[in-house]
Amino acid sequence: MKVFLNGRLVPEAQAVVSVLDRGFLYGDGLFETVRVANARPFRWAGHCGRLRRGAEFLRLKLPLSNDELLAHALALIVENQMPEAILRVALSRGVGRRGYSPRGADSPTVVMSLHESEAVEPGKPFAWRLATASLRLPAGDPLAAFKTANKLPQVLARAEAEERGADEALLLNSSGEIAETTGGNFFWIAGGIVRTPPLAAGVLPGVTRAAIIELCGTDGIAVREERVPPEVLREADGMFATMSTRGVVEVTELDGQLLCRAPLTARLHAAWWDLVQRETRG
Amino acid sequence: MKVFLNGRLVPEAQAVVSVLDRGFLYGDGLFETVRVANARPFRWAGHCGRLRRGAEFLRLKLPLSNDELLAHALALIVENQMPEAILRVALSRGVGRRGYSPRGADSPTVVMSLHESEAVEPGKPFAWRLATASLRLPAGDPLAAFKTANKLPQVLARAEAEERGADEALLLNSSGEIAETTGGNFFWIAGGIVRTPPLAAGVLPGVTRAAIIELCGTDGIAVREERVPPEVLREADGMFATMSTRGVVEVTELDGQLLCRAPLTARLHAAWWDLVQRETRG
Repeated sequence: MKVFLNGRLVPEAQAVVSVLDRGFLYGDGLFETVRVANARPFRWAGHCGRLRRGAEFLRLKLPLSNDELLAHALALIVENQMPEAILRVALSRGVGRRGYSPRGADSPTVVMSLHESEAVEPGKPFAWRLATASLRLPAGDPLAAFKTANKLPQVLARAEAEERGADEALLLNSSGEIAETTGGNFFWIAGGIVRTPPLAAGVLPGVTRAAIIELCGTDGIAVREERVPPEVLREADGMFATMSTRGVVEVTELDGQLLCRAPLTARLHAAWWDLVQRETRG
Repeated sequence: MKVFLNGRLVPEAQAVVSVLDRGFLYGDGLFETVRVANARPFRWAGHCGRLRRGAEFLRLKLPLSNDELLAHALALIVENQMPEAILRVALSRGVGRRGYSPRGADSPTVVMSLHESEAVEPGKPFAWRLATASLRLPAGDPLAAFKTANKLPQVLARAEAEERGADEALLLNSSGEIAETTGGNFFWIAGGIVRTPPLAAGVLPGVTRAAIIELCGTDGIAVREERVPPEVLREADGMFATMSTRGVVEVTELDGQLLCRAPLTARLHAAWWDLVQRETRG
């Protein structure tokens, strides 16, 4: 397996960074997780846009244009012969002086790596059991808009969910409102309307979240953004999470309670996969 | 310069970790910054205790005992001939599978590196201009008790302070109370009493914070823990920050306002340096 590291393709064993890289020291960086199909990244502009906005917020230089990054990503896909995969893009501030000040850290680290993806069966979403995490995300956190490399709350929530026999965690924010899962946006269906928290609830502006809202629009399905406590989920006809790696994942259980399953979930999964195919075959 | 990496001393250029190390990907780790004087780390038990409590909270294995770590640290100090230095200890969860779940990541990364320390003049503390950060720390964050590798809020606050011509940031918590600086605990003196936020305000249980409270006790100086808004600082007779690297740092300016300087600050700095000398000469 080859990995892209600062302009070069290197064997995975040589894809290393200094222990003084600020990514390793402080999580001083960002990343993106991108679905690759038909040897092309899906919604590249969306992922690069978020990465770039994050870099601007962190005042971190991204030394390559979207097109240059894309050319390297395509070369990586060809080199590893992985036309169906998950692409991870990571950007860190690189090595600087000791301490939190970013001054003098002017050589960012750029990494792209490919990872196996599970086979997708269109219209047959994966199923997840969720457990509500005890840890809450800070409401109003300006960093929530980006995929930063500060992910300890997500790591801890995920570990807690797994200890409780679930697959993934449902995170609330510090105001007690539904936020997201550790690795995806959260949706529920009630009264024929697809509902999801607004970005202001402190959730990631997911690329797949946007695609699903778009697909609902095309299909004439109403979508409503709601800041609500988890109690509203008792009235839900179905729930799902969205993420680049798996599209739509159906939530079949929440805190040990079996849930209703809405046929719409499988339909959206099929529509997502269709969209991926159409856009990456271009 | 040699660096300790997973049991071996290696040249700095070879002190590298995989780009798939969870420290680099998610900031999934912890660290400690330790003052070294007379070729010995000051308050080793305090630093190791916090590191170990953090590792337990994150369910992260620390594969070496405090004594084993100490033996390696002493060897590193001798090898680099740096009897006066700053020692950085870092622990990350190492490489695992893609995604937030820590499952399968069973080989943690342990790093120790030495860094130049500025010369200390006993009783002459460094001087800092502080700027209040716009970003706030989440009150009640369980992770605040540990020195985790998720330090983007600190990096951003520090960068903002520097842009405003200050040396360091004063962080408030989400309840609007005084919390800490990015790299140290915060104290102020008013009415002859030394005051500092309690740990419950979401501040790091600093090793130097504890030493200063101890020294005040010995000297008959009252210390009070207070959860208060920054407006109380208008009545302060002096302010200082505490940290392992520099002991006591006098705050001479806050948001552009010149401050009163209390003689007690320099006295505590001298007492701290005396304590460092006594304990490391043992």
